[in-house]
Amino acid sequence: MTERRFAAGDVPTPDHHLTDDDSNVHYTWDNGIDPVLTVAPGDVVRFDCRDAADRQVGPDSDLTEYLAVETEGHALTGPVAVEGAEPGDTLRVDLLAFEHEGWGFSGVPDGDSGGGLLPEEFPNPHFRVWDLDTREDGTRVARFADDDAPAVAVPLDPFPGNLGLAPGEDGEHDTMPPRNVGGNMDVKHLTAGSTLYLPVEAAGALFSMGDCHAAQGDGEVCITGIEAPMSVTARFDLAEGRSVDAPEFETTGPFTPTGRDEPMYATTGIAPDLMDATKAAVRNMIDHLHEHRGFSRPDAYVLCSAAVDLKISEVVDAPNWTVTAYLPESVVLD
Amino acid sequence: MTERRFAAGDVPTPDHHLTDDDSNVHYTWDNGIDPVLTVAPGDVVRFDCRDAADRQVGPDSDLTEYLAVETEGHALTGPVAVEGAEPGDTLRVDLLAFEHEGWGFSGVPDGDSGGGLLPEEFPNPHFRVWDLDTREDGTRVARFADDDAPAVAVPLDPFPGNLGLAPGEDGEHDTMPPRNVGGNMDVKHLTAGSTLYLPVEAAGALFSMGDCHAAQGDGEVCITGIEAPMSVTARFDLAEGRSVDAPEFETTGPFTPTGRDEPMYATTGIAPDLMDATKAAVRNMIDHLHEHRGFSRPDAYVLCSAAVDLKISEVVDAPNWTVTAYLPESVVLD
Repeated sequence: MTERRFAAGDVPTPDHHLTDDDSNVHYTWDNGIDPVLTVAPGDVVRFDCRDAADRQVGPDSDLTEYLAVETEGHALTGPVAVEGAEPGDTLRVDLLAFEHEGWGFSGVPDGDSGGGLLPEEFPNPHFRVWDLDTREDGTRVARFADDDAPAVAVPLDPFPGNLGLAPGEDGEHDTMPPRNVGGNMDVKHLTAGSTLYLPVEAAGALFSMGDCHAAQGDGEVCITGIEAPMSVTARFDLAEGRSVDAPEFETTGPFTPTGRDEPMYATTGIAPDLMDATKAAVRNMIDHLHEHRGFSRPDAYVLCSAAVDLKISEVVDAPNWTVTAYLPESVVLD
Repeated sequence: MTERRFAAGDVPTPDHHLTDDDSNVHYTWDNGIDPVLTVAPGDVVRFDCRDAADRQVGPDSDLTEYLAVETEGHALTGPVAVEGAEPGDTLRVDLLAFEHEGWGFSGVPDGDSGGGLLPEEFPNPHFRVWDLDTREDGTRVARFADDDAPAVAVPLDPFPGNLGLAPGEDGEHDTMPPRNVGGNMDVKHLTAGSTLYLPVEAAGALFSMGDCHAAQGDGEVCITGIEAPMSVTARFDLAEGRSVDAPEFETTGPFTPTGRDEPMYATTGIAPDLMDATKAAVRNMIDHLHEHRGFSRPDAYVLCSAAVDLKISEVVDAPNWTVTAYLPESVVLD
């Protein structure tokens, strides 16, 4: 029996349910899109999310069908307005549960498209379907569906690749690059049990989500993770007394692909230059340690050097890359 | 009782012992430096290694003493020649055991020196001594030695920050930047039980090591880890049938600061541009999966996107940065 649900502890019954019908899906970030739902702080919402190919491929698809996919952007379910959220506020999003549909896919785009990290080395497109299974020992993994494909077992830990808020700047914004309000961050550690903090730029916050991945390596180098349609249950709140310049989050799930691990506090840097992104992530962690944990700035700098890990979360969502700094919570004893 | 030794399994009695006397220490990479020891393939060597400050500070030192440190480069113990090693060969180095001396230090350099990731934000130097302790539960951690410092517990897992081979190009080479022959890579996962593969450029390979860290975050952002004098026991061999363009390695130790984890295979990219380094690390992992694991290149590319993590190992050893790609071994079933 394949268990498709991933949850952190007891999950309350959702107060609202957004299907992935056309009326609930949009393809650009735009603060002019009317909210499809307005919630009170504390409300729990179930989002049905289409996959990155907008449900135009399925478990029986092949490369030809994959190449025929046409999308205007990521299919995002939302936007959800949160009562009382105003520019300058911080939205808290608790990711409570994920449920996939038993399959996913990965694709390499045509090299001429310039997508992925190495388009010159990969001129030809490629497509694979994955089965999302439960093994006899209870672990849950993805395997290539094609019997002729290599035998692999990628541990599953689902997360939304694209989740965030409408930008404050009016007009349509491409869903590909992540921004300080979130979006296509492709941070693999935003799994069930994680808490995300996002800076609000538009009245109502206007949260949307989609592009779920059953698993992904940091970097997402070929431009897809294990793309899968999924439903996600999340709780919204306004984070009083907390201000973030870019997405920050707390994790409770495994930090390594197969390992056991502990809660982390993470800060992100998002910029079109990897070095600038790295500096931003570290600056934000230093700010966090200084402002919320009582460290002097030099001691925070030393602690970053000794115990905070930098990971390249993503280098394919042009033109912005995501670098993340992770602090293991047990390091700080207070 | 503080246990200072970290070992992976049974460690054979070393065949040779290199003290850190002046006669065994050098401060530049130079294939013209005479080897201080010649070993046969399979030999085990114990290296006594000075800390990054060349033993000019100690557990009772303060900022003034730290600022007075003058070094010509990293103090490296070696070089060790390996019989039969020729340019084009690959040297295998098994890191078997580490033993520290109960203390370490971290420093932030003067902002005017341009050292560290954020010199503009940290114009003033800073210095901290760490106690390297064993807790009642048996875990081993670093704590700031000063009672007035923040209460932290950084889990220990020692590794050499700087280990590598003499470059093929004649003349003196600065010890600060890492190169394809290794050197100051600051890869925190080269802990006891790891195996490192280095491309030989000079006859005899000419291996040296130093700059040990009791712990470090990926990135080493303030330019120091927990710097500590240490002895390191390593075994040398020629890796028949294996060719690497840049350092590659296998890890067995914990992959996270405090977590349990599994063996990894890792490839590095070293370049003065983070994007170039990232591409190189991924190219090398794809080459590995293709050449040694039987993957087609497109399937290798997909697997990298789904299950290989990119971490920024180091962004402070100017002018070259290190990016590392990690493959969890259990993902490939063979």
